[in-house]
Amino acid sequence: MTLRVGVIGTGAIGQDHIRRITNTLSGAKIVAVADVNVEHAHAVVKNEKIDANIYGNGHDLIQAAEVDAVLVTAWGPAHEEFVVASIKAGKPVFCEKPLAPTADACLRIVEAEVTHGKQLVQVGYMRRYDEGYRALKKVVDSGKIGEPLMVHCAHRAPSVSNFSGDMAITDAFVHEIDVLRWLLNDDYVTAQVILPRNTRLAGKGLQDPHIVLLETKKGIRIDTEIFVNCQYGYDIQCQIVGETGTANLPEPSSVLLRSEAKLSTEILTDWKERFIESYDVELQEWIHSTVKGEMNGPSAWDGYVQAVTADACVKAKQTGQIVPISLPDRPAFYDKNQFYEFSVVR
Amino acid sequence: MTLRVGVIGTGAIGQDHIRRITNTLSGAKIVAVADVNVEHAHAVVKNEKIDANIYGNGHDLIQAAEVDAVLVTAWGPAHEEFVVASIKAGKPVFCEKPLAPTADACLRIVEAEVTHGKQLVQVGYMRRYDEGYRALKKVVDSGKIGEPLMVHCAHRAPSVSNFSGDMAITDAFVHEIDVLRWLLNDDYVTAQVILPRNTRLAGKGLQDPHIVLLETKKGIRIDTEIFVNCQYGYDIQCQIVGETGTANLPEPSSVLLRSEAKLSTEILTDWKERFIESYDVELQEWIHSTVKGEMNGPSAWDGYVQAVTADACVKAKQTGQIVPISLPDRPAFYDKNQFYEFSVVR
Amino acid sequence: MTLRVGVIGTGAIGQDHIRRITNTLSGAKIVAVADVNVEHAHAVVKNEKIDANIYGNGHDLIQAAEVDAVLVTAWGPAHEEFVVASIKAGKPVFCEKPLAPTADACLRIVEAEVTHGKQLVQVGYMRRYDEGYRALKKVVDSGKIGEPLMVHCAHRAPSVSNFSGDMAITDAFVHEIDVLRWLLNDDYVTAQVILPRNTRLAGKGLQDPHIVLLETKKGIRIDTEIFVNCQYGYDIQCQIVGETGTANLPEPSSVLLRSEAKLSTEILTDWKERFIESYDVELQEWIHSTVKGEMNGPSAWDGYVQAVTADACVKAKQTGQIVPISLPDRPAFYDKNQFYEFSVVR
Amino acid sequence: MTLRVGVIGTGAIGQDHIRRITNTLSGAKIVAVADVNVEHAHAVVKNEKIDANIYGNGHDLIQAAEVDAVLVTAWGPAHEEFVVASIKAGKPVFCEKPLAPTADACLRIVEAEVTHGKQLVQVGYMRRYDEGYRALKKVVDSGKIGEPLMVHCAHRAPSVSNFSGDMAITDAFVHEIDVLRWLLNDDYVTAQVILPRNTRLAGKGLQDPHIVLLETKKGIRIDTEIFVNCQYGYDIQCQIVGETGTANLPEPSSVLLRSEAKLSTEILTDWKERFIESYDVELQEWIHSTVKGEMNGPSAWDGYVQAVTADACVKAKQTGQIVPISLPDRPAFYDKNQFYEFSVVR
Repeated sequence: MTLRVGVIGTGAIGQDHIRRITNTLSGAKIVAVADVNVEHAHAVVKNEKIDANIYGNGHDLIQAAEVDAVLVTAWGPAHEEFVVASIKAGKPVFCEKPLAPTADACLRIVEAEVTHGKQLVQVGYMRRYDEGYRALKKVVDSGKIGEPLMVHCAHRAPSVSNFSGDMAITDAFVHEIDVLRWLLNDDYVTAQVILPRNTRLAGKGLQDPHIVLLETKKGIRIDTEIFVNCQYGYDIQCQIVGETGTANLPEPSSVLLRSEAKLSTEILTDWKERFIESYDVELQEWIHSTVKGEMNGPSAWDGYVQAVTADACVKAKQTGQIVPISLPDRPAFYDKNQFYEFSVVR
Repeated sequence: MTLRVGVIGTGAIGQDHIRRITNTLSGAKIVAVADVNVEHAHAVVKNEKIDANIYGNGHDLIQAAEVDAVLVTAWGPAHEEFVVASIKAGKPVFCEKPLAPTADACLRIVEAEVTHGKQLVQVGYMRRYDEGYRALKKVVDSGKIGEPLMVHCAHRAPSVSNFSGDMAITDAFVHEIDVLRWLLNDDYVTAQVILPRNTRLAGKGLQDPHIVLLETKKGIRIDTEIFVNCQYGYDIQCQIVGETGTANLPEPSSVLLRSEAKLSTEILTDWKERFIESYDVELQEWIHSTVKGEMNGPSAWDGYVQAVTADACVKAKQTGQIVPISLPDRPAFYDKNQFYEFSVVR
Repeated sequence: MTLRVGVIGTGAIGQDHIRRITNTLSGAKIVAVADVNVEHAHAVVKNEKIDANIYGNGHDLIQAAEVDAVLVTAWGPAHEEFVVASIKAGKPVFCEKPLAPTADACLRIVEAEVTHGKQLVQVGYMRRYDEGYRALKKVVDSGKIGEPLMVHCAHRAPSVSNFSGDMAITDAFVHEIDVLRWLLNDDYVTAQVILPRNTRLAGKGLQDPHIVLLETKKGIRIDTEIFVNCQYGYDIQCQIVGETGTANLPEPSSVLLRSEAKLSTEILTDWKERFIESYDVELQEWIHSTVKGEMNGPSAWDGYVQAVTADACVKAKQTGQIVPISLPDRPAFYDKNQFYEFSVVR
Repeated sequence: MTLRVGVIGTGAIGQDHIRRITNTLSGAKIVAVADVNVEHAHAVVKNEKIDANIYGNGHDLIQAAEVDAVLVTAWGPAHEEFVVASIKAGKPVFCEKPLAPTADACLRIVEAEVTHGKQLVQVGYMRRYDEGYRALKKVVDSGKIGEPLMVHCAHRAPSVSNFSGDMAITDAFVHEIDVLRWLLNDDYVTAQVILPRNTRLAGKGLQDPHIVLLETKKGIRIDTEIFVNCQYGYDIQCQIVGETGTANLPEPSSVLLRSEAKLSTEILTDWKERFIESYDVELQEWIHSTVKGEMNGPSAWDGYVQAVTADACVKAKQTGQIVPISLPDRPAFYDKNQFYEFSVVR
């Protein structure tokens, strides 16, 4: 069976997913695209040489008989309505992150899904599909380093032209928020944000770097340096310190060079390259799972928790205080696959 | 357009390719399988849940109208007849290595292809599709290390139960023979084999390790240690020494562990894991190229050169002499894509 | 000229220094030893085969005409009296850390030295003499990574049998307190201590690990994990994050082993091995400097700052608060060689 | 007891050793220097501020009553006479490499020492005292990698201005000749030299690189790349491949830098830095041994074997043949400390 996918939103990430499903992945095809800018949708369909119906409205696409599953890549404020409509239509929906712009909107999606009674929503946190993070989780779960006690992370980018305000948290750190919960199988209880000496190389008025401290229910302490104008590269570090050892996220594989008095490997500079393969794996697994009637990626609940945690971090930054993170109890509905085990890891 | 592929030979590697094309890759489907053991072919088709015609004879499959392209995974001695038949039928054919058991047989395939007038044959040397070798080639081609002067390689496996005679050359070293020509864009002129002190951990009567020395037309000197009972892991090493620097094949990516007084990464122990992704890339690129009417993987000529070189190495081992490697001139027919450039590298 | 050294205190560290000066270093000899246990002093002199006068009282040794310089390796509570007496006698004195058990006692030593008018005291913080820390300081001072913004450290030991209360700070973290000021050429303004999930492998009632957060005058933020029952090894990590790059304290040099499916280097398990060479360098430089009438190692002021900072960290741990660190202005007396530049670095 | 050392030859290496013994090492002092250029000897004594008698003739120095032991750092052709004279005078003598310019001359020294009846000669092969080689030997001797079967080495220097003819062998490779015998506790039986494609960056008419292949009595095969215009650094590599694993000479310790899209450590460019500490250890151990009446460094026999092996390599290079290396039986006289075990290794 080939999964027939409809895509709402034909911007850059929408086009990436269309190409991915058409040229690289197995088991799905794009049968419909929607965009408020219908001409743009036409251009994309033509450009990608796909045979897809075109809709000027996401809701029409969701209702279309030829669409088995929905991929939401519209802008953030439109996510809620399309995800909720997909749920109501009983169609599996993959929604790019963030699930919705506010925690309240995320919670409404959770409630819609619980009411519907069947899990249909996956949120696009692709790091869980990265080979490196999966290898790291495998080590942690194996008990090789004992129970985790601390996590030291760095999230560095060479420079950002478009960051302002709290985007270091809301656009960058959100990835750590999601992937660390998954790695540790734990939830957060407090957040604190430290503002180090500012680099002179950030845009005017922008605080950079930040250090975010999170505490989990089990008492694990996480420190994450977020430094988005670090100049030297796009560099994601994660070290888990357990009772008997430590485990580091693997460095991306690279040619070892001896040249000009240096023994060196390359550091990536473009974030797109770092997780490019995880996008493929993420969608491929979504396709295979959806065809089997399963849903085991990041859930609507995960999207909600991410939103609540990010809000707490922003508040911690603004107040300088240690901010509690409180969540309602997780609906039992999500128990089964909240922290799913991926089936195959190299 | 979906490429309709027929598979001749439903043993382990044949089944792997069937699964790969069915579940992982894009743009092709298995429409026919053939095996001298028809019952086995039936079982495979049933087991893999594919909708494919079954033939008891490879030639019937080659002639079948529903088959656009042929994948030969039969045992070695049958390669020649099926590859030549595919050529005569004008159908693209992917043949697992070795192209044929003898250099003469390989040459007959080359001649058939030249006579036919259009390049149709690709041989299954998957290392050219390995991300690491591609990154290494990119560095070499970039000029970062200057002109290559020497290459130091190691081809190590933890143990082999089934090796005898010259299989260290004919089953293991053949991969280096192919991939180093491609890396260096050069051909071999002499071979010498050195027999070091034997490990006590090899099977009775088996020489292990070997060191093979190759000299290229440009004067580049290659030394390769082949050690198939090295115990500790499956470990493929390649260092290219150029005029201004050296470049090493990347180590497979792995979690860095601090544990039990060691800072360590894992070494693979199963050769299947080491190049598993390159099989996917190899077949995916073959599918995409074939659909476009192009052929740019390892050619029949490459298969022939591999056979001639392996013969010289075996002779060098047996005689202890430096053995010249002489080849007829390469037919101009193969000029275009002999050393093709892959289009996309991370 | 050979520097004639008198040693007060013939315990383990005293004997180490006696052997060091006698068998390894150049330019000094042990001419006198003192211990409240005179018999023990006799035994040490005999055992080490040195020709030294023996005193039952440190003050007599300080006054002895044959003694050019004093080495204080008595227990902590006796440091103040012997260091002050050496100052009053106008004799250079090397005092093992801590300079004195309380900040007030350290300040009295500072005041005695200022009153005396010539700098005579060096405190035994040997990390400043470690080849790795020196190479790291050289990189930082070179500007290669820009202005430092953050420092991430780990201070890990396999296990401790004798730790209680706040010793993670007062016995372990004191080394970071000293060496980071020197590395950054900066002073501390606040301290915060975080108590992560406790390892089950520490002694009963012992909190382990700790994370100490320090803020410097320049706004640099330092986080140090102190984990003294980490099981896997004695492991000192330090990464300085600057505006344009990061620099890590080198790992100790080690054979790279491929064995049992692991690519590994050894991690030390005994702290004595980690800094053994820095003790040699420390004393050798002290001897050479002292002979030249100079004093350029860690000063009495540095010893005082260390004590004040450790007190603040202990208070931060006990209160859970961010604790300010306030110091009187540094006497101009210490300006010259406070952050001296070492003359030779590999 | 302080060892009173006389130095014959006050060139660069002689001055280095004078400074070393005077300012860095323990247990010896320079009491006499000799040079055919007496004025130069005077200048050195004055410059180094040492209190030493000056001789215009090495033989007078050897006979001088104040001299306990002799250090020969004269030019090569004069080594034989001074070493033999020291032997005849019954004085321990440390001779810088090479022991003598020809194998015959070396053999005459061996015969003189055997005739004298007590081992007095040590040759200055400092690599045996390098911390890295010692750690490597410790791993090999521990059995961790099983019996050694192969050794892969590289001896690279950024550039040489003064090399001609066979100096890649006689000036560079001699270090591997000595240290590999010591590492493997084995002797050589054949040599072969391969001439790879020449770098365009060597001096006119100079072959560079070379690959030297050595076979040992036990059948171990050694390949060493000698590349003295490799541009990128001074880089000494050594990998021992055993039956169950491999062990690499440690890389010199270095700051790990993340900067400009590279993760890098530094490679040394000056050979003097690479083994500077091993010179200190070498002479310090010689001093301590000599005082105890022992001799356990590289012996006159080792110096002779080195000369015979280098001659065979030069012949192999010139003829392109595999050249046998034959030695007389080692005099039993040298059995005891031929392959001495160093007493302390980190």
